Amino acid sequence: MKTAVTIMVAAILAISVPASASVIVNKAVTESEVLAAQQNWCDALVDISTTYAESGHSCAKALAEQVIEGAYGYQMGAVLFKPTLTINPQTFRTTPEGALSYFVGSNSEFPNDSGFALKGWTKCEPENAAIFISGNSASTMGKVHFTDKDGQVTTVDKTWGYVKDDAGQLRIILHHSSLEYSGE
Amino acid sequence: MKTAVTIMVAAILAISVPASASVIVNKAVTESEVLAAQQNWCDALVDISTTYAESGHSCAKALAEQVIEGAYGYQMGAVLFKPTLTINPQTFRTTPEGALSYFVGSNSEFPNDSGFALKGWTKCEPENAAIFISGNSASTMGKVHFTDKDGQVTTVDKTWGYVKDDAGQLRIILHHSSLEYSGE
Amino acid sequence: MKTAVTIMVAAILAISVPASASVIVNKAVTESEVLAAQQNWCDALVDISTTYAESGHSCAKALAEQVIEGAYGYQMGAVLFKPTLTINPQTFRTTPEGALSYFVGSNSEFPNDSGFALKGWTKCEPENAAIFISGNSASTMGKVHFTDKDGQVTTVDKTWGYVKDDAGQLRIILHHSSLEYSGE
Amino acid sequence: MKTAVTIMVAAILAISVPASASVIVNKAVTESEVLAAQQNWCDALVDISTTYAESGHSCAKALAEQVIEGAYGYQMGAVLFKPTLTINPQTFRTTPEGALSYFVGSNSEFPNDSGFALKGWTKCEPENAAIFISGNSASTMGKVHFTDKDGQVTTVDKTWGYVKDDAGQLRIILHHSSLEYSGE
Repeated sequence: MKTAVTIMVAAILAISVPASASVIVNKAVTESEVLAAQQNWCDALVDISTTYAESGHSCAKALAEQVIEGAYGYQMGAVLFKPTLTINPQTFRTTPEGALSYFVGSNSEFPNDSGFALKGWTKCEPENAAIFISGNSASTMGKVHFTDKDGQVTTVDKTWGYVKDDAGQLRIILHHSSLEYSGE
Repeated sequence: MKTAVTIMVAAILAISVPASASVIVNKAVTESEVLAAQQNWCDALVDISTTYAESGHSCAKALAEQVIEGAYGYQMGAVLFKPTLTINPQTFRTTPEGALSYFVGSNSEFPNDSGFALKGWTKCEPENAAIFISGNSASTMGKVHFTDKDGQVTTVDKTWGYVKDDAGQLRIILHHSSLEYSGE
Repeated sequence: MKTAVTIMVAAILAISVPASASVIVNKAVTESEVLAAQQNWCDALVDISTTYAESGHSCAKALAEQVIEGAYGYQMGAVLFKPTLTINPQTFRTTPEGALSYFVGSNSEFPNDSGFALKGWTKCEPENAAIFISGNSASTMGKVHFTDKDGQVTTVDKTWGYVKDDAGQLRIILHHSSLEYSGE
Repeated sequence: MKTAVTIMVAAILAISVPASASVIVNKAVTESEVLAAQQNWCDALVDISTTYAESGHSCAKALAEQVIEGAYGYQMGAVLFKPTLTINPQTFRTTPEGALSYFVGSNSEFPNDSGFALKGWTKCEPENAAIFISGNSASTMGKVHFTDKDGQVTTVDKTWGYVKDDAGQLRIILHHSSLEYSGE
């Protein structure tokens, strides 16, 4: 008998205060979204490398343009991007043109770019030291390990900063990458 | 055979890229934190009512001071607080003194306050129409149902705005409460 | 001699380290943006009233649709909107259809809406009690005074919550309006 | 005559709707706050160097502890800090102990740290490539030029991420510093 009564009360409560009636708009950043955004970047890099090997430079360049358009936040005004291998006076790539040149080269305005994404990468793995999520932005810091087609692994120190756009997607608005310091 | 190999590779990856090594600082607001903050407000209101009935006005006032100090964000500069029953020119209570007076009355500077938290409330239930979480702040809108000691229910339209403080606690920085419009 | 050399070095540094070279992307909300968003809402309300009087209901409705689309954040998922004169069970208008019906009426799904924006408003003035800006969101609380064509003034207690969208525009994601409490 | 009347009405309105009556709480980050935070970091570095030269290691260490406590956000949970000259497996300094060791050395737990702030710096100048302010956080990227006591200048690529704390102060929660890439 007691069970039946309890169920009745629960049913009445469910009618008078229906929690499920409320609409939830949640624009906060979650850890899993951050990890997915990192993996997407890595997957895209390997995709560009594979596309270059199989379909040539123009296909790789078209894909890189898509990736930059889709994953970075250049449409927000600028991206704070310091790629691993750029030199003065073109160290920072705050425009999409500068980012594209870094990834696929062949741009006479950036004569020192040889195309980082064209180097035959077969694997790319982020390894986070720390993640800081603050409201609608997030930052990560750690190593990223790149494996080339000969199995050689290159490791860099990498910081990414993300903000969530109106559509709910994380976009890279900060990217600082550097070779490991060797201690001489 | 294929399954066994896959598992071995997965085990190797798990060792070389230990996700558990990273430190996560997450300051984003979650839905459950918002619901808990609402419930805490309701529980505190009933506590003040009970304390008043059992231990008198000075105990209720001391508790109300604690609640305002602990749950609102007056230390951030001001709170946007429009209580249900205030009148001009003291409609808005942007200071902790004004909030305290609304809840427990007996303040000659706010002669129209009779003490909303002293009205013998035995139950307080939020019913959300919608919640909007944006970064380190959140807003809720809906009904709140107050039951008094005779079982009479009063319902108000209520909006709360929260921000997360440095200690990770949600604080009310906006509170707009109003009687339901009757249609005449 | 030493002074002259120092000045030359300083001049060279000033050229090589131009502070103006940096790109600034600033997505923080400013007080003037908040005040402008409030004024825009008021101006739009008077515009809809005027359009209704001069050009009829369908023109007023078309304008109201534009205003809701342009000033509110329904495209972000929902808006927490409690208009002044709505009654249960349609108190909250979390969809654009519900907002439009409140402003211009003539919607059989919302039979109690007579069209708040059609009431011949000639003036609308916000008077803030407090503003709270936190990152990319802002909240305001205060009075809004509406003057009709006979010079009669109606005052309501009003809270607005805004977030800045990707395009840099403030959008209303929270709007709680209520008649002043008379004290009985 | 008409002008005079208009001015009178404006004066009356200004009295009845005093904008200055509203309380403003503004927690957004400004560009000048960001520039000041960068300059403070540079000034503190030179201070530690000077203190070390004039008053010895224990005074320099005490000052460095104060600087880390005051300028970084370790109390928020962790800081994403990759100093210029750290090596594996101690590249990242997510704790205040690791940061202190980097700046003043003499910590047996971090045997490769020689104390970056003890290197006789006499000048430190940030040169921003870009700044991104998003709500209550901000990021900067650019060069920082360090001048030692012999007038030698060392330049690094540096990213800082800040969040504003409850007291309204910007705190460094991200700091990635790296030697310039030489192109071989």
